[in-house]
Amino acid sequence: MTPFKPVALAHASRLINHGPTVLVTSAHDGRRNVMAAAWSMPVEFTPPRIAVVIDKHTWTRELASAAGGFALCLPGAGLATLTHAVGNESGRTVDKFRRHAIHARPGPVLGMPLIETGCLAWLECRLIREPHAEDAYDTCFAEVVAAAADERVFSQGRWHLPEDQPALQTLHHLGGGHFVRAGAMISAAGAQPR
Amino acid sequence: MTPFKPVALAHASRLINHGPTVLVTSAHDGRRNVMAAAWSMPVEFTPPRIAVVIDKHTWTRELASAAGGFALCLPGAGLATLTHAVGNESGRTVDKFRRHAIHARPGPVLGMPLIETGCLAWLECRLIREPHAEDAYDTCFAEVVAAAADERVFSQGRWHLPEDQPALQTLHHLGGGHFVRAGAMISAAGAQPR
Repeated sequence: MTPFKPVALAHASRLINHGPTVLVTSAHDGRRNVMAAAWSMPVEFTPPRIAVVIDKHTWTRELASAAGGFALCLPGAGLATLTHAVGNESGRTVDKFRRHAIHARPGPVLGMPLIETGCLAWLECRLIREPHAEDAYDTCFAEVVAAAADERVFSQGRWHLPEDQPALQTLHHLGGGHFVRAGAMISAAGAQPR
Repeated sequence: MTPFKPVALAHASRLINHGPTVLVTSAHDGRRNVMAAAWSMPVEFTPPRIAVVIDKHTWTRELASAAGGFALCLPGAGLATLTHAVGNESGRTVDKFRRHAIHARPGPVLGMPLIETGCLAWLECRLIREPHAEDAYDTCFAEVVAAAADERVFSQGRWHLPEDQPALQTLHHLGGGHFVRAGAMISAAGAQPR
């Protein structure tokens, strides 16, 4: 039984609010790919919109452009080695899902490959065509059309990351295959009640 | 003595590679402001370029547009309450630096206000005018023109976050004034030697 439950679209941008590294997946015309991306951010809550940097020379960018969409999947800290690996291989000549025995299921709206095993959440995204930003900054804007998260770590629109369970913490890439995982939660004085 | 040392521009984008929440500062014509932003990311290493979402209705956005620049300062985990506070006040009618007794010094290239006490790094940035992205997504692209970091946590182009010293960990906003701080470092199999 998957612990994944749908996330309301109004809460979807919160899934990447704290800067986790993501796996970007896409599929088109019988081909599929997965790569790692440290560079993504929300740009709007409602409608839920995000930006992610996908180099124009990558196979994922080609697939995402052709498909008009992609998915962001958030790896838990147990997937550090896999995340680094898929960020350093090209999928043009090999199916990285098969090579790494990654199970994916098709997304509910666009059919993008969704990874849940070892991941904490996913966002299925429809590309918003912005040729200048895509060309000048490799920055792809997109609208989230479906999202889900492991209810052990995200429910009712809020993260509750368990400090004592590293596999249920998000990964944040520092560079060169070195990551920091999310640690203790801290609430500001004056924070909203949880 | 400040432990801040200059960061080579080729390494500047790494300062926000792992998705920390930042304080955005700006100054123009004798006025200055500081706000919090969870939504930023690098878009290029060389030249070092970043994107940050700054709502068009904010005073910081007005100042940054007029000045043609801003700075990103990375708060350590000890500044969670301050970060939340400056993210929930407008600086139009009050000098938030004075209200919160925040010491700032002018940046070396653009004169943007730089906060070092309690912070781990800063990036002084020159705005790249992109009217459409600024208008449609509140996304401001900029080039980093100077950067520095606390050498206890970042040196020779690399983060080395000490898990046992929370004040020297970056903050990552989950929403509503609740943050997660960076925790343990994890190196992938096949990571670059450190």
